[in-house]
Amino acid sequence: MSRYDSRTTIFSPEGRLYQIEYAMEAINQVGMGFGITTPEGVLLVSEKRLQSKLLDLEGSEKLYKIDGHVYCIVAGITADANTLVNEARLHAQQFRFKYSTPVPMENLVQHIADIKQSYTQFGGLRPYGVSMIFAGYEESLGWRLYQSDPSGNYGGWKAVAIGQNASTTNSIFRTDWTEDLDWEKATTLALKVVQKSLDTASLSPAKIELAMLKLVDGEPKLELVGDEALGEACEAYKVAAKENPDKE
Amino acid sequence: MSRYDSRTTIFSPEGRLYQIEYAMEAINQVGMGFGITTPEGVLLVSEKRLQSKLLDLEGSEKLYKIDGHVYCIVAGITADANTLVNEARLHAQQFRFKYSTPVPMENLVQHIADIKQSYTQFGGLRPYGVSMIFAGYEESLGWRLYQSDPSGNYGGWKAVAIGQNASTTNSIFRTDWTEDLDWEKATTLALKVVQKSLDTASLSPAKIELAMLKLVDGEPKLELVGDEALGEACEAYKVAAKENPDKE
Amino acid sequence: MSRYDSRTTIFSPEGRLYQIEYAMEAINQVGMGFGITTPEGVLLVSEKRLQSKLLDLEGSEKLYKIDGHVYCIVAGITADANTLVNEARLHAQQFRFKYSTPVPMENLVQHIADIKQSYTQFGGLRPYGVSMIFAGYEESLGWRLYQSDPSGNYGGWKAVAIGQNASTTNSIFRTDWTEDLDWEKATTLALKVVQKSLDTASLSPAKIELAMLKLVDGEPKLELVGDEALGEACEAYKVAAKENPDKE
Amino acid sequence: MSRYDSRTTIFSPEGRLYQIEYAMEAINQVGMGFGITTPEGVLLVSEKRLQSKLLDLEGSEKLYKIDGHVYCIVAGITADANTLVNEARLHAQQFRFKYSTPVPMENLVQHIADIKQSYTQFGGLRPYGVSMIFAGYEESLGWRLYQSDPSGNYGGWKAVAIGQNASTTNSIFRTDWTEDLDWEKATTLALKVVQKSLDTASLSPAKIELAMLKLVDGEPKLELVGDEALGEACEAYKVAAKENPDKE
Amino acid sequence: MSRYDSRTTIFSPEGRLYQIEYAMEAINQVGMGFGITTPEGVLLVSEKRLQSKLLDLEGSEKLYKIDGHVYCIVAGITADANTLVNEARLHAQQFRFKYSTPVPMENLVQHIADIKQSYTQFGGLRPYGVSMIFAGYEESLGWRLYQSDPSGNYGGWKAVAIGQNASTTNSIFRTDWTEDLDWEKATTLALKVVQKSLDTASLSPAKIELAMLKLVDGEPKLELVGDEALGEACEAYKVAAKENPDKE
Amino acid sequence: MSRYDSRTTIFSPEGRLYQIEYAMEAINQVGMGFGITTPEGVLLVSEKRLQSKLLDLEGSEKLYKIDGHVYCIVAGITADANTLVNEARLHAQQFRFKYSTPVPMENLVQHIADIKQSYTQFGGLRPYGVSMIFAGYEESLGWRLYQSDPSGNYGGWKAVAIGQNASTTNSIFRTDWTEDLDWEKATTLALKVVQKSLDTASLSPAKIELAMLKLVDGEPKLELVGDEALGEACEAYKVAAKENPDKE
Amino acid sequence: MSRYDSRTTIFSPEGRLYQIEYAMEAINQVGMGFGITTPEGVLLVSEKRLQSKLLDLEGSEKLYKIDGHVYCIVAGITADANTLVNEARLHAQQFRFKYSTPVPMENLVQHIADIKQSYTQFGGLRPYGVSMIFAGYEESLGWRLYQSDPSGNYGGWKAVAIGQNASTTNSIFRTDWTEDLDWEKATTLALKVVQKSLDTASLSPAKIELAMLKLVDGEPKLELVGDEALGEACEAYKVAAKENPDKE
Repeated sequence: MSRYDSRTTIFSPEGRLYQIEYAMEAINQVGMGFGITTPEGVLLVSEKRLQSKLLDLEGSEKLYKIDGHVYCIVAGITADANTLVNEARLHAQQFRFKYSTPVPMENLVQHIADIKQSYTQFGGLRPYGVSMIFAGYEESLGWRLYQSDPSGNYGGWKAVAIGQNASTTNSIFRTDWTEDLDWEKATTLALKVVQKSLDTASLSPAKIELAMLKLVDGEPKLELVGDEALGEACEAYKVAAKENPDKE
Repeated sequence: MSRYDSRTTIFSPEGRLYQIEYAMEAINQVGMGFGITTPEGVLLVSEKRLQSKLLDLEGSEKLYKIDGHVYCIVAGITADANTLVNEARLHAQQFRFKYSTPVPMENLVQHIADIKQSYTQFGGLRPYGVSMIFAGYEESLGWRLYQSDPSGNYGGWKAVAIGQNASTTNSIFRTDWTEDLDWEKATTLALKVVQKSLDTASLSPAKIELAMLKLVDGEPKLELVGDEALGEACEAYKVAAKENPDKE
Repeated sequence: MSRYDSRTTIFSPEGRLYQIEYAMEAINQVGMGFGITTPEGVLLVSEKRLQSKLLDLEGSEKLYKIDGHVYCIVAGITADANTLVNEARLHAQQFRFKYSTPVPMENLVQHIADIKQSYTQFGGLRPYGVSMIFAGYEESLGWRLYQSDPSGNYGGWKAVAIGQNASTTNSIFRTDWTEDLDWEKATTLALKVVQKSLDTASLSPAKIELAMLKLVDGEPKLELVGDEALGEACEAYKVAAKENPDKE
Repeated sequence: MSRYDSRTTIFSPEGRLYQIEYAMEAINQVGMGFGITTPEGVLLVSEKRLQSKLLDLEGSEKLYKIDGHVYCIVAGITADANTLVNEARLHAQQFRFKYSTPVPMENLVQHIADIKQSYTQFGGLRPYGVSMIFAGYEESLGWRLYQSDPSGNYGGWKAVAIGQNASTTNSIFRTDWTEDLDWEKATTLALKVVQKSLDTASLSPAKIELAMLKLVDGEPKLELVGDEALGEACEAYKVAAKENPDKE
Repeated sequence: MSRYDSRTTIFSPEGRLYQIEYAMEAINQVGMGFGITTPEGVLLVSEKRLQSKLLDLEGSEKLYKIDGHVYCIVAGITADANTLVNEARLHAQQFRFKYSTPVPMENLVQHIADIKQSYTQFGGLRPYGVSMIFAGYEESLGWRLYQSDPSGNYGGWKAVAIGQNASTTNSIFRTDWTEDLDWEKATTLALKVVQKSLDTASLSPAKIELAMLKLVDGEPKLELVGDEALGEACEAYKVAAKENPDKE
Repeated sequence: MSRYDSRTTIFSPEGRLYQIEYAMEAINQVGMGFGITTPEGVLLVSEKRLQSKLLDLEGSEKLYKIDGHVYCIVAGITADANTLVNEARLHAQQFRFKYSTPVPMENLVQHIADIKQSYTQFGGLRPYGVSMIFAGYEESLGWRLYQSDPSGNYGGWKAVAIGQNASTTNSIFRTDWTEDLDWEKATTLALKVVQKSLDTASLSPAKIELAMLKLVDGEPKLELVGDEALGEACEAYKVAAKENPDKE
Repeated sequence: MSRYDSRTTIFSPEGRLYQIEYAMEAINQVGMGFGITTPEGVLLVSEKRLQSKLLDLEGSEKLYKIDGHVYCIVAGITADANTLVNEARLHAQQFRFKYSTPVPMENLVQHIADIKQSYTQFGGLRPYGVSMIFAGYEESLGWRLYQSDPSGNYGGWKAVAIGQNASTTNSIFRTDWTEDLDWEKATTLALKVVQKSLDTASLSPAKIELAMLKLVDGEPKLELVGDEALGEACEAYKVAAKENPDKE
């Protein structure tokens, strides 16, 4: 674990690239985010770490609009994320301009992943310290959810998490996710995951952000769940959890 | 904390970028600056460290005009700050020239933040050792206050501080800032913060600089508070503080 | 094994290039893939490592279409593989566009191999951590199967494996492969290889992916073997293996 | 003070840039220079270290004309200074050519300061080992005096020193400089400073160079004080000093 | 042998370039190849290391056609060899296109040698780990045989070997080669060399590849010796060797 | 003297640039050269180290003609000197071509000095290991003598030496040089300096080269002093030295 | 001799450039070459190290024709020499093409020397490991002989040697060379030098190569001395040496 970890461009004797692993470590310490696909759309959730009332956000903290049909959640070094989000927006606009059609999700995701990969292979650079979840809608394929990590690897998922406790969350998804989730069940699943991950007694709207990407008049649209509705959902979840403790 | 801290382009095994942390250390040792938004405008305050009568300043020490509607306060390595301020001015002018409209605050702030981010990812460079507060006015959004640090991260705030004791100051803001501050209350809050931070018995106009960014005839305008008015405010604050020691 | 292994561009005193050997080590730890030529076509098999039901793949996990007449299987760092697959697709399209004829297999394989070689000779780069099997059809030469490794070396084979246990698999091929395999016998050979390599009691369709590249109406076409058919083949193999234990 | 000091592009854990501090050290060992503003003009003084009669100087040793209205004194590595002086002259000429007006002092000073800053941020370079004092006249602002150091920092001053004993000299200025100095009083102040700094019994014209930048027929003009006049001033100072020992 | 061997661009105190020596070491471990000139043509021989029946070679393993009148044998890192063979082919074609005449052997060989030399003199590169034998025909000069090594050195020879045991083979050539070899005698010399070098009891067609470059209808043409003919030659050699053991 | 001396681009903690000091060391070990101005012209002297009769020099060993009115003497690494002399010649010709007037001495000297300075500030380069004396004539200024060292520093002098024992020689000049030297007295001074510096009993024409740059028909012209005349001067000097031992 | 020798671009504390010294070491181990000027032409001699009958040389081993009037002998790394010889040929041809006159010897030699010098001053390169002797004829200057070494230094000589024992050879030249050598005496001198340098009892044509550059019909032409004539000369020398042993 000695000499091989201080340069991007070398393999260790076991064939590992330590700098990429360290970059992933940077991501494991930041607030969690996840996406859950349902037949009706995608539920996007992100943990709120900065809960100061002084923050003056236009919109959401970690949820970015890439194009009308694509949104993304990031986890990791915020400055790195901003750069990639900008690149994604530019790519989406240029595609739309050139081909008069929305950029296909995979085309967009691979473009960003290729940029990330190149930062792991050339000297004098460090990998991007950021994981991303892209959620979107395509006419031919329906709802799509992608995850990409600092190595430039990416994949399509039905439900996937990034950031702190991502592996725990992903294993909950493996057991609890089903094809036929409706918004209510998806929200319950999301709150269960948040509860487990945050490991605190009281679930409150102040700690999470919840958004629904769904079709409105045939167009994909993101709808942020307000604090009030979120509070009600939290309460409902707590009641249900108490009644069915085994459910957890 | 050994081998991983001498190059920008590597992560430590815990996923940290030490050079950025060291750059932030450089900022923690310089004079404080902060901004407070009110419904009527933004109060900008900076500590005067060089108080020599020999200094021949045109205007303010750490307060820079970027464009008619944007001002900024800097903390850190002055030479680095000059470079970024110039870049910001240029960007604001070019935007105005291209689109015949003032540059939106976030567009400007992100432009500077992107430059900072790139200096943390490529080899052979060091991060910019400077934090900045941008205050400005936009017709659609009203008064805006942004903070950006050496990593290239940035955010919108209602009240925020940079430089020495920034974290102490920010926690005072968290408890004392309210939506409905008028100029007087904002000034009192500012003086309280300065008093706490400087940790000296006597508050005097020689040690701080106070400016009000407000609308004059519908146009944003910066108004420096003169030494006399500032002296009166200091005295008033001291009297009030004595009367209400608990207020602190 | 000391100083000579941390830079691509140096030979060790014994004339070895350690970084290439370490890159190959990276490949020895990932899921196996192999190809078997028969007079009727090429059988392509890859191990499924990520078996999560949450994965939302369009098509296959490690099997990529390069052009109508060329497919490839990869083993190694997925992000590196994506980059090379894209390059291969681009090269195939450009060839078709320039010469109005499908790219010859060797031309394509050598193009990718040359890119890999260049990453082993110049400073500030690391080798590509990926091995690839290219399978395709050429009118004049019939079915072709190529293997390329991180050094940029490549060769044509009748049957060849990459990834974990590749050398074991290749020695099974050396004894068991014959010129006159039909689809059934080739499938039996493939299952035998998988059984040996995975070293688990039960062979199941969940762990492997099997595809046949064959001529349909005179055109090369890839046909994925469905889970059902694959399951039947597994069962048949197990029965046969029990009956002829010596066959193993 | 260990590993962090051998590369420009890294911060030490305390946020310091050692290479810049070492460059400043280079300046602390060379002959002193200073400037004093008066209502009538600027008095520029530099220590003569090379007092060889063999030197064949056209004009002054450390005093450079930049343009008709700007002069500068340098302290540090002479070769570095020559490069920057040339750059300053070029910039002044280009400004005059482009805008048909003399370059404003701050524009010129910042241009040189920006060059210096860039040499502290990029790898493979060392900072410029030179501090400079720029003195000049602007129609709108009158007499201007600027100081710039190796970090790229600069500032406007009423009186300022560079080189050996600069901090001692600057503190004498802080106590003794007044708004209403005439040429005589300014000369007395200059001789006092020189006497203290040189720390030798006899003040003589051979050790210093004294020049007055003043308006002649409405145009700024530099007038070197001849050896004879300087000798008389030295004598007068010594007499006065003896009479008023407390004045020191 | 310490610090001087890890960079191409430095000499050791004894004036040696270790990286080139290490590259040559890489070549000493791979299969042997050699060429023998006769008045009738050139006999080219290469050892077959990969004898797998699964290999699907078009033509020969280590014997490359450069142009109609030039062939080459390589020894060393195969990926490096491919790159240089391509470059040689390109150069030959460009020469033919520009001057409407076949490229002269020495022009071609020096072009490749110059490329190799440049990789030994510039930083950030490693030498090409490959030796080559070029055999060809020129109207004015007749049969030509060249050898080039990783340093970029090259020379014309009557008979020369590369790869494992090259120095032993070359000393056999020095004693046994004569001006007036016919194909039969040249084949006998070749088999003797192979026998000595391989150091195994039985000489068989499976281990070597033998080709004759000769004039057919006035044009140079390469003729591979088939396994049958080669087997007969081996048998004949063994019989003769038994009869004349002293001949060895 | 440890870590700070192996790279051009770093300052030591005391603000020194060791590489420049080491380059100057290289110059202190080579043959001495010097110039002495007189009202009638400049006397240029250089030590002859290579006294082999096999040397086939066109003209002088260390004395170069730059242009009709400028000559130079070099001390240090000869290959470096050749490069700079060529650059000086080119610059002089280009100036003459562009402005139809001889290049002013200071313009030429600063051009060369700037090149030298740049080699001390950028990474990956070493300083020029050469000091130079430029002697020339300008219509407006008369005879000019400049010295430039490896740091890029330069200055005008009445008499100056470079190379071995340069500091001793310069102090002899400080005591013995006068404004009103004629050729004879200048020669005597030169011989005295050579005698002291060479520290050998017998002064002989074989060890030095002496040239006079003077006006012939109003044009500057270099006149080498022949061996015979030089021998006579040596003898005369020795006689005089014996008669006036105190003169030394 | 420690840290300073592994990079071209640094001086050691004594002002030495070790890499150049090491490159010269590389030359001291290769076969000797020398040139002797006579009123009738230049005698060029080189030691034959590779005496294999298998070598297929067109012309001479270390003697290269640069242009009709210039030839050169090299000693050192052959691949480096080839590159420089090509460059010299190109330069000579370009000069002839541009100015319709043969390139002057010094122009050619300096061009090659400048290339060599640049490889000693920039990072990431190593010096050329080759010394060269250029011999040629110029109408105005007659026979010219130049020597150039790895530092980029060069000089004109009457007789000069490179490679092994060069310094011994050069001192023999210093005592034995005279202005009025004819071909016979020059040959005797050459054989004496070879005898001393090779330090073997028997002088034979197999070990050396001897060529005369002389005027034939007013044009410079190189004439290789055949083995027979060379053998006779050797015998004659041995007889004479026995008769006059003191001559040695």
